[in-house]
Amino acid sequence: MRDIAVFSGSAHPELAEEVCAHLGVPLSPTRVSRFANDCLEVQLQANCRERDVFLIQPLVRPVQEHLVELLLMCDAARGASAGRITVVMPHYSYARSDKKDAPRISLGGRLVADLLVAAGAGRVLAMALHAPQVHGFFSVPVDHLHALRELAAHFRRYDLSRTTVVSPDLGNAKEAAAFARLIGAQVAAGAKQRFADDRVIISSVIGEVADRDVIVLDDEIAKGSTVLELLERLRELGPPRSIRIACTHGLFAAGALKRLSEQPDVLEIVCTNTVPVPAEEFTDKLRILSIAPALAEAVRRIHNGESVSALFDEPRNL
Amino acid sequence: MRDIAVFSGSAHPELAEEVCAHLGVPLSPTRVSRFANDCLEVQLQANCRERDVFLIQPLVRPVQEHLVELLLMCDAARGASAGRITVVMPHYSYARSDKKDAPRISLGGRLVADLLVAAGAGRVLAMALHAPQVHGFFSVPVDHLHALRELAAHFRRYDLSRTTVVSPDLGNAKEAAAFARLIGAQVAAGAKQRFADDRVIISSVIGEVADRDVIVLDDEIAKGSTVLELLERLRELGPPRSIRIACTHGLFAAGALKRLSEQPDVLEIVCTNTVPVPAEEFTDKLRILSIAPALAEAVRRIHNGESVSALFDEPRNL
Amino acid sequence: MRDIAVFSGSAHPELAEEVCAHLGVPLSPTRVSRFANDCLEVQLQANCRERDVFLIQPLVRPVQEHLVELLLMCDAARGASAGRITVVMPHYSYARSDKKDAPRISLGGRLVADLLVAAGAGRVLAMALHAPQVHGFFSVPVDHLHALRELAAHFRRYDLSRTTVVSPDLGNAKEAAAFARLIGAQVAAGAKQRFADDRVIISSVIGEVADRDVIVLDDEIAKGSTVLELLERLRELGPPRSIRIACTHGLFAAGALKRLSEQPDVLEIVCTNTVPVPAEEFTDKLRILSIAPALAEAVRRIHNGESVSALFDEPRNL
Amino acid sequence: MRDIAVFSGSAHPELAEEVCAHLGVPLSPTRVSRFANDCLEVQLQANCRERDVFLIQPLVRPVQEHLVELLLMCDAARGASAGRITVVMPHYSYARSDKKDAPRISLGGRLVADLLVAAGAGRVLAMALHAPQVHGFFSVPVDHLHALRELAAHFRRYDLSRTTVVSPDLGNAKEAAAFARLIGAQVAAGAKQRFADDRVIISSVIGEVADRDVIVLDDEIAKGSTVLELLERLRELGPPRSIRIACTHGLFAAGALKRLSEQPDVLEIVCTNTVPVPAEEFTDKLRILSIAPALAEAVRRIHNGESVSALFDEPRNL
Amino acid sequence: MRDIAVFSGSAHPELAEEVCAHLGVPLSPTRVSRFANDCLEVQLQANCRERDVFLIQPLVRPVQEHLVELLLMCDAARGASAGRITVVMPHYSYARSDKKDAPRISLGGRLVADLLVAAGAGRVLAMALHAPQVHGFFSVPVDHLHALRELAAHFRRYDLSRTTVVSPDLGNAKEAAAFARLIGAQVAAGAKQRFADDRVIISSVIGEVADRDVIVLDDEIAKGSTVLELLERLRELGPPRSIRIACTHGLFAAGALKRLSEQPDVLEIVCTNTVPVPAEEFTDKLRILSIAPALAEAVRRIHNGESVSALFDEPRNL
Amino acid sequence: MRDIAVFSGSAHPELAEEVCAHLGVPLSPTRVSRFANDCLEVQLQANCRERDVFLIQPLVRPVQEHLVELLLMCDAARGASAGRITVVMPHYSYARSDKKDAPRISLGGRLVADLLVAAGAGRVLAMALHAPQVHGFFSVPVDHLHALRELAAHFRRYDLSRTTVVSPDLGNAKEAAAFARLIGAQVAAGAKQRFADDRVIISSVIGEVADRDVIVLDDEIAKGSTVLELLERLRELGPPRSIRIACTHGLFAAGALKRLSEQPDVLEIVCTNTVPVPAEEFTDKLRILSIAPALAEAVRRIHNGESVSALFDEPRNL
Repeated sequence: MRDIAVFSGSAHPELAEEVCAHLGVPLSPTRVSRFANDCLEVQLQANCRERDVFLIQPLVRPVQEHLVELLLMCDAARGASAGRITVVMPHYSYARSDKKDAPRISLGGRLVADLLVAAGAGRVLAMALHAPQVHGFFSVPVDHLHALRELAAHFRRYDLSRTTVVSPDLGNAKEAAAFARLIGAQVAAGAKQRFADDRVIISSVIGEVADRDVIVLDDEIAKGSTVLELLERLRELGPPRSIRIACTHGLFAAGALKRLSEQPDVLEIVCTNTVPVPAEEFTDKLRILSIAPALAEAVRRIHNGESVSALFDEPRNL
Repeated sequence: MRDIAVFSGSAHPELAEEVCAHLGVPLSPTRVSRFANDCLEVQLQANCRERDVFLIQPLVRPVQEHLVELLLMCDAARGASAGRITVVMPHYSYARSDKKDAPRISLGGRLVADLLVAAGAGRVLAMALHAPQVHGFFSVPVDHLHALRELAAHFRRYDLSRTTVVSPDLGNAKEAAAFARLIGAQVAAGAKQRFADDRVIISSVIGEVADRDVIVLDDEIAKGSTVLELLERLRELGPPRSIRIACTHGLFAAGALKRLSEQPDVLEIVCTNTVPVPAEEFTDKLRILSIAPALAEAVRRIHNGESVSALFDEPRNL
Repeated sequence: MRDIAVFSGSAHPELAEEVCAHLGVPLSPTRVSRFANDCLEVQLQANCRERDVFLIQPLVRPVQEHLVELLLMCDAARGASAGRITVVMPHYSYARSDKKDAPRISLGGRLVADLLVAAGAGRVLAMALHAPQVHGFFSVPVDHLHALRELAAHFRRYDLSRTTVVSPDLGNAKEAAAFARLIGAQVAAGAKQRFADDRVIISSVIGEVADRDVIVLDDEIAKGSTVLELLERLRELGPPRSIRIACTHGLFAAGALKRLSEQPDVLEIVCTNTVPVPAEEFTDKLRILSIAPALAEAVRRIHNGESVSALFDEPRNL
Repeated sequence: MRDIAVFSGSAHPELAEEVCAHLGVPLSPTRVSRFANDCLEVQLQANCRERDVFLIQPLVRPVQEHLVELLLMCDAARGASAGRITVVMPHYSYARSDKKDAPRISLGGRLVADLLVAAGAGRVLAMALHAPQVHGFFSVPVDHLHALRELAAHFRRYDLSRTTVVSPDLGNAKEAAAFARLIGAQVAAGAKQRFADDRVIISSVIGEVADRDVIVLDDEIAKGSTVLELLERLRELGPPRSIRIACTHGLFAAGALKRLSEQPDVLEIVCTNTVPVPAEEFTDKLRILSIAPALAEAVRRIHNGESVSALFDEPRNL
Repeated sequence: MRDIAVFSGSAHPELAEEVCAHLGVPLSPTRVSRFANDCLEVQLQANCRERDVFLIQPLVRPVQEHLVELLLMCDAARGASAGRITVVMPHYSYARSDKKDAPRISLGGRLVADLLVAAGAGRVLAMALHAPQVHGFFSVPVDHLHALRELAAHFRRYDLSRTTVVSPDLGNAKEAAAFARLIGAQVAAGAKQRFADDRVIISSVIGEVADRDVIVLDDEIAKGSTVLELLERLRELGPPRSIRIACTHGLFAAGALKRLSEQPDVLEIVCTNTVPVPAEEFTDKLRILSIAPALAEAVRRIHNGESVSALFDEPRNL
Repeated sequence: MRDIAVFSGSAHPELAEEVCAHLGVPLSPTRVSRFANDCLEVQLQANCRERDVFLIQPLVRPVQEHLVELLLMCDAARGASAGRITVVMPHYSYARSDKKDAPRISLGGRLVADLLVAAGAGRVLAMALHAPQVHGFFSVPVDHLHALRELAAHFRRYDLSRTTVVSPDLGNAKEAAAFARLIGAQVAAGAKQRFADDRVIISSVIGEVADRDVIVLDDEIAKGSTVLELLERLRELGPPRSIRIACTHGLFAAGALKRLSEQPDVLEIVCTNTVPVPAEEFTDKLRILSIAPALAEAVRRIHNGESVSALFDEPRNL
């Protein structure tokens, strides 16, 4: 079997280190240079020839820098005769650009998938894609993990007998329902209304939420405004017994983490480490679960040619 | 401008005739031969050279026959030096295979998109794709129409003041919400539960439905069992004032139309003609709306290089 | 060396079982589901990751169903990270669509080859392609076997001293000549005449056939009308001493087997099992030779990286 | 409509001039330079931008020089933003490498087709391909003309009532049969035998030839040894009343023309000008028919988007 | 002829406006949105269907943002059925990554060319590529302009009788020689020396520079340190009579413009507007020449299918 | 690890033999046939299936023959299921066609790179490409060796204390500078002047050459006229103490070797064996250095997946 070589871009080296620690292989060094004209050059600083190369890079802020860096890493690995190139993308932010809901807009989710393949990516390991269909945007094999198991393990420490999982949006309600089944809870969802002036508000919440232990679940939280709006609606409908917030991808842009933590009825904000959260933004209510063990196990199985699906329950079975 | 040439496969020649009538161009003849070894051969029986060729074929039962026939039509048009090949697919049945929810399954929605391009398709005109993300499965431009406008025009003849649009499934609730906004109604959705023995039932309906004028809306109805199950749930929750059923793609497999029509509280079953319904299956409650005018207008605009989005409101704005 | 994994579509599972028995490996299970909308979904039910995957499926009646099923199998294997995908196609029926002899017709032989590659096929193992040039329609490596050796072994049990091998068609006469050389016989061929009303008849037989032991040889027999017509011509030219009929692909459509068996001067009808013959159609005169040992040996050599040409004499040397 | 621009490589400028004269457009100049390191550089010396570019080059001796020159011409036209590039290849010599009849040999007919597309060819106009299946080697549209009409027009000046068209080879007999039908003659064919020492001889002629007016027809004549051998066989079988030799592609390598002309019973050797015959090799018996009018008419129709098949009877109808 | 539609990314809208003014067509609006997760979405806000679309975007600081934006613009235009997509890249900064001078590094110049094509670019209009070979990195037609004509026109106002054009680097000396010929001057070049500690210095200047009117010419000036070092060397060799600095791409990173302007013996710094120079960085010595007329004329000729090379002297002829 | 299989085309079998001797593996036989119609057919006469195949062929005179032969070799290896195909091209003559310096010319350097990939080449091992950017013309990994180390080893036997390395051309001066650093010498370069009548002469030499031990260095010498012209210029500037001539690729066309050897002040002409020099052209002053050991070591490392860059200093570090 070809040797494994794991490289990290500059997006989330801590996660890459943690994955490598679980794998028991060293993280090979990457040099990223920026020229005076602002162009990047990547050098992979360990032999790639015929190696089974894994490139770890979530597409997080600054997204464009990290994307181009990742494309250059693919190109460098290909030019260096890598035996196989697997892009490990714990957060694929461009997955949100997954449909054409306005004329003449870019479809970033598909485009970036094509760019990665054009740059040499031979397979992808992704986590909690915004929609399961995004899998089909890639013309190379994708292993698609989710973090519901990790989130469920965390919440099972609580009494869940009066719990409702609430999706802020009907579009995501299926995922919330799967998670609810996993922890034996009920499900509810916010319904949005769009006004002529292009304002969108959550007009109602369908499902039972008053006086329940509520877990608000979304795949990612960026500015947090949707969650905040949902909280207001929940309070209007008769306050929940308790509120916890959970997501896979904690982007927490524009002070979102601080704002959510300041809500007095929010007991906890749970996310995973697919996205790095700056230490200075940590709050008492934040819990970060590590998906490094899951990623490492998937990498190990991909490398060894073992079944990845055997490891993780498929959503169909949740 | 290059001349237009419209051909129909054998899936739905009536629709193709109707589109051509609206366009004011003749439907060019297609010859489909079946050899003794069961292979098909297609001959396009009008000059294609440098023409703007449109091939009309919904992927309806028998799907595999119609798919291979369509691929052969694309190949014939390409080999005959067509200037541009647009596949008009009013029903893209393989769009339902849009995610990988079990290990080692085929992803038919993406595969068939790639096959069409491999066979020579240069662009696609589709209608009411099962999920909007399926647009991104195609590597060629797609114009994606929906039939909500036609359905809304039909229902506006009724008093809609106490109407709730009900999606049988949370996954489709967003579309139902868009339709509800379009006709000024409320929205509700069924939530499914999956049991250990792989049985799935609609365990609850979230939203207000008792004593409402209900319009059950789905993108397609095949066997109709989900709708029937939803009706039972609705009746348990306190019977609706009235029930109407609506969908874009009326597949009506396995006697579904008869079974639905026999429900005494169902007043009407409304679909469009993206899929041919055999005359002998018609019931008194069936209403078929024609989307031929919309398809013809889209074909005309594609041919003339006019904006298609200017014609149809984008879902974002509904 | 990567492990081997062999799957069969639903076209000819008996042949696949027999090939696996010769190989000494289990036939891995395949699940083919048909949705209510008539679309197919394939699940390969054994780990494919990095495996050397072989998919066995002759393109036999119903051809379109089996073709789409095969394409979905390729897609599933690719998506499941197969190390290499070899399509084993004992009968490639679309090979007959190998030339453009009318304007604006499809060229199915090339198109289907391209579709297989688009779906993920990495190499092909074929048998007795209708024309040797069809090999060149594939952009991936093809191992092209023939069954002349098996047919010759069968006929060598007879006294061949007064034998003439007769091709019904000049186009196939080269193959008949190769077979005649293999068994030390003479060769003859029918010449066809085409009339203004598009009727084609065998107008003459060139070569010595009267009072000979005749073996009519064709690559495939479908409706059998060409063979029947040839028999009439032979009888007119002075009856042969005996008549035997041989082909690689016994499609036997439209009661062909019964009709041929009813010819009193036909002693035997010999084909191979590249195509399944329904047991209820068997006649006393039918002999089916198994090409499973040859396919198994070719698969074994492909898997082990041994020369396949070393095994089978090339036609050039026959 | 885009303007037309016709260029010729150095293989057969006379034919290109003649085609242009029939088209009524000037032949645009091409500069081919050879560097000191023996590499070629092509400059197309007229504006190609958005033009409908035709590149005329039969692949004749020295084939490799003319092939690379043609590839460079395609590349130059593409780089110069040609609107469309049609390769006009009156003789595609690599079409003879159309099957894999020995292990590990190149399949030149398919490879060169792929190289032309890789270099920028968008469509091909070919003449009398060695086998009709070679059409399917190209992934771009091919218009495939034949010269049977021109040959027939020539021979119709003679009394054809006792004529037999003889193919030297069973493999080509179908073409001979089509030509025989066209001029109302009989058909015969030589059958080859291969010996253990790899020698091949024409062992017999099947069909009536003694005391007939024989037209030996082949698609191309290179060294002429097959034809000479056939003549000997014919003489053994009872001398024909007369012998004429006809082919589309008169390659006449290694003194073939002189040798054939020296046969006293050969009255005439007829070929077309798809291949240039050096004036110093002309003999009294040689007749060269021009296919320039046919090529020019095909180019005109391709340029104008008119049906090419409408012009030429398809072989199926001959 | 298809209508023209010109769009600008956010890199240099002033230049795009100026090009459009010269063309006499409006600059169509582009909307670039940044989502909360830092991903970009582009909407082209004018009909692209069948239009001849030009996308103007130099790859300037922040390069990665502008590159991804440009890729999204290509994708949006392709998805919107643009008839043709031409990327107008007045500065292609990644062209500097044109060789592999260290192991396992990315080759950005080729990669970005491939990414543009993968995103839908059909042709490229570039200016003063760092090396002429970079042209060959693109698999689509490139029109490659240079600004030597504009620079020469500027300098011809001076007495050039004692002028030497000095390239800071031997690698660029050919371009300097061409420019020197254009204005009737002599040429000289700096020779660099590399030390074991990876330091590089200009060790000598080959050619006559003392007491000459020197024009230092480079294709781009970023940090300006090479030019500053050259100036020191020139002063050591016997001070020049005068010093002027000229380049096509004035990147002026890290205060370069200020630093160069502060050199008392530098009379003038001349660049073009391929790259936007912030107004607050202007100095008295800066002269910016506009290449908008040249770009506009090239766009006009590309759109009209006229020769671009007829407009601009090729470097070979300078 | 897959077995290695090395084949040679007919361009330089002596070099291939020498490489194989260093590798300790046999050179597998290749059969190249030329048909009567001048087409080539290649047969690789050893099993390629899953082998690590290396095809050795410098593109030397006759270049077109050797190029097409190499393309056919790639095709044969691909069709024979080679595991990996590496083209070993010690001299890539088409690399000189690396820029578009006239309108509508072919860009042979890029085209041939694309053709090789289209024919099946999976990687390339090249030597001393005319410009380092040519590396980027290939879409597959390239290992790019240079022969400066071998040349330096040769010249270190002399007293180099008063040596100047002279490049005939400013464009190549960078390479000359690298070589000068390697042997501790000075550098100089000829500057060319182009006249209106398209004549080009070396108008001056920049750098110190009079009374120096001069090594004229070029990457290739074809007709040698540039070197001869440089020698005249050097003599005019004050004769050098001694003159030696060195290049990697000794093409020596049109009697160049004889002409250079006849120069009385030229002591030595040094080249490598990337290009075969006919024995009958040898002169007393010629020294041919073998790069077979370097090629063999690179092949060995490629086959074993070891770093090639670790072996050869990168030019950046020279």
